[in-house]
Amino acid sequence: MIILALNCGSSSVKYQLYDWANKLVIAKGLVERIGIGDSFIVHEVPGKDTVREEYECHDHSAAIGLVIKTLSRGHTAVIDSMEQISAVGHRVVHGGEVFARSVLIDEEVIKTIEDVAHLAPLHNPPNLAGIKAAQKVMPNVPHVAIFDTAFHQTMPDYAYTYPVPYEWYEQYSVRRYGFHGTSHLYVSKRAAALLGKPAKECNIITMHIGNGVSHTAIKNGVSVDTSMGMTPLEGAVMGTRCGDVDPAVPLFMMQKLNIDAKAMDNLLNKKSGVLGITGRFTDRRDVISCEDSDYKNRCRLSLEVEAYRLRKYIGSYYAVLGRVDAIVFTAGVGENAGVIRQMAIENLEPMGIIVDKEKNLKTFSKHGETEISTPESRVKVYVIPTNEELVFVEDVVAILTNTYKDHTEYPYSFLK
Amino acid sequence: MIILALNCGSSSVKYQLYDWANKLVIAKGLVERIGIGDSFIVHEVPGKDTVREEYECHDHSAAIGLVIKTLSRGHTAVIDSMEQISAVGHRVVHGGEVFARSVLIDEEVIKTIEDVAHLAPLHNPPNLAGIKAAQKVMPNVPHVAIFDTAFHQTMPDYAYTYPVPYEWYEQYSVRRYGFHGTSHLYVSKRAAALLGKPAKECNIITMHIGNGVSHTAIKNGVSVDTSMGMTPLEGAVMGTRCGDVDPAVPLFMMQKLNIDAKAMDNLLNKKSGVLGITGRFTDRRDVISCEDSDYKNRCRLSLEVEAYRLRKYIGSYYAVLGRVDAIVFTAGVGENAGVIRQMAIENLEPMGIIVDKEKNLKTFSKHGETEISTPESRVKVYVIPTNEELVFVEDVVAILTNTYKDHTEYPYSFLK
Repeated sequence: MIILALNCGSSSVKYQLYDWANKLVIAKGLVERIGIGDSFIVHEVPGKDTVREEYECHDHSAAIGLVIKTLSRGHTAVIDSMEQISAVGHRVVHGGEVFARSVLIDEEVIKTIEDVAHLAPLHNPPNLAGIKAAQKVMPNVPHVAIFDTAFHQTMPDYAYTYPVPYEWYEQYSVRRYGFHGTSHLYVSKRAAALLGKPAKECNIITMHIGNGVSHTAIKNGVSVDTSMGMTPLEGAVMGTRCGDVDPAVPLFMMQKLNIDAKAMDNLLNKKSGVLGITGRFTDRRDVISCEDSDYKNRCRLSLEVEAYRLRKYIGSYYAVLGRVDAIVFTAGVGENAGVIRQMAIENLEPMGIIVDKEKNLKTFSKHGETEISTPESRVKVYVIPTNEELVFVEDVVAILTNTYKDHTEYPYSFLK
Repeated sequence: MIILALNCGSSSVKYQLYDWANKLVIAKGLVERIGIGDSFIVHEVPGKDTVREEYECHDHSAAIGLVIKTLSRGHTAVIDSMEQISAVGHRVVHGGEVFARSVLIDEEVIKTIEDVAHLAPLHNPPNLAGIKAAQKVMPNVPHVAIFDTAFHQTMPDYAYTYPVPYEWYEQYSVRRYGFHGTSHLYVSKRAAALLGKPAKECNIITMHIGNGVSHTAIKNGVSVDTSMGMTPLEGAVMGTRCGDVDPAVPLFMMQKLNIDAKAMDNLLNKKSGVLGITGRFTDRRDVISCEDSDYKNRCRLSLEVEAYRLRKYIGSYYAVLGRVDAIVFTAGVGENAGVIRQMAIENLEPMGIIVDKEKNLKTFSKHGETEISTPESRVKVYVIPTNEELVFVEDVVAILTNTYKDHTEYPYSFLK
């Protein structure tokens, strides 16, 4: 069984082709600059040189056509024809309160994704465009939707309710939803495997730190709280997003700058976070290595703010869980920035967290799953490379084989 | 030495007259509805019946005149003449980054308070009106300003910097300031006294929970982080303020409701928090005792959201401090709502926090300072009635007697 995973953004399509029988990634890549001119595809096949080709894509249909053609024809081909693809998994950012698990896409599912699109106006419409385009190109295979929000639908009401007028929830669905669900799912189940316990007996704090950043408190295997909110703007410091901030600040600055809500939302999403503090960088490697005297102090400050707020979330979720078995760092920064991990987690011995500093600073993604706590540490601390695509693929297989109820019951291959 | 403490709001003046030699409150009270018609004074003298009199006050000058007249003339009098008042202490909400301690008010201080008024447009102008009116009525005595923000000026930059464009800090002073400083100061020093250690050796988490709510992480006796931010809107759930919320939520709802930044700021400050969730109450006693079936579930939810977020702050500041000696609950709700304290703090044994549930539920303000943790608890948990007015008085005395540098050095009477 060969499965295509698609992740459609406003001007990009990421894809991965997976051979389920042999548990192998056949190819992956992305199309960028869709609909804005000079679009191109970058196509990677394990063991071969990466191919980059320019090809004008005016819309998502064209981009998905290009992906299929690249996968199945000419010198880039990895399959004989697109008929070899058994199913397609689509990432959908926002599932609102409706979707608590991955689902087979039908007319009603599409309508529901459209209904909740107002909660994620930048994300759900391109996700939908991708689904529709892919259905047109591949009408005879099942399409499955995998939601960023689904994993967090187990949160209790007191964790997802905001202290704002209750009608905002009733009439406009204002509440915490949370995102990065497939990543938190994957690394929490891997941590349970490393702990040697069933996932449903584990309390885990997962720290997904990439360009987007979110943390999740996982109690007895399910999400009970997460740092992103109604939108991905809330929570930790991110590459360009502000995360937690006095809600009066944007309202104050709108009046000072004389800009509207949309423009402010854009500033908080695109010009804040690490970029906002440093004034120049989003990549943490640049922030860590900066020697430019004009920016050095602001880079120091940015790292300290970021790590300090990670630390606060660890403490916060520790109190939520009461007992913590493990803390997991994952995603680009979480897997590779030992310096940030160290600043976030040192001197927490009174909470039973003891990190092997030397080992921590030397641990990178390429080392695979690594325990960075000392043997005496009551709480295990792990670096675990995330694998969201594998969750996509397994959810698709699970649905196709009719063996799927939800993530707590399904025997994912990575549980052991 | 007799000292008058004044706290001037937009339409109210609170006052307290204190006899420093005998350490006694002589009288206290408030004038309400200044400048909006039907204004009145409520005047309390210990051991006597409370007096309520209507008296039209068009502005703060009239209100302060009324206070002086009430204190010094007729059947309400407690002093022979206003000449007996040696000094006046004024509460000023926002001191920006300039004031890290209480100061004698002169022309320059007034100008500086005016300069930072844009950060607290609802609070600093009435504070200033009160200062000017009191100076006019009592031109021959020293006037001292005591700031809500001063105690928190010891925060490190990584705790007060928001991950927003850095120019907002440079050009508009956008950063965390924190409030309720005199209360956090008072109860943290009392907790140190109860611990039997010098304040500067204590790590303490102070939970001021009233209609306004803020929490502070105090390391070696000084504030290193606090939950209120640039304004008092950030942080915990409050009577009518939202506290922490996805910053995208107000921007989203402004577009849905078609309202501007000012109107949204008003909704978040006046119609949110406990009132927002319950749809009806701000007083936690009403929330706890509500039996009305239309509101019961929302009251349950409001209590759970409030307590859950207290718990998250305790965890967060625990991680900030690394080692915690004591947690203090104070102010109306913190001193009296054992149910909320219990929900916030139970099942935290892995953090060394063990509360005597029965004792906790039976502890109220009237019992004075009470330890509610068990003898085995590594972290002491106290209920301590706050006394901000005493800090006002002692800061005034300290400045008048020229013995004051800052709160870490000054020998407050309540250190023992």
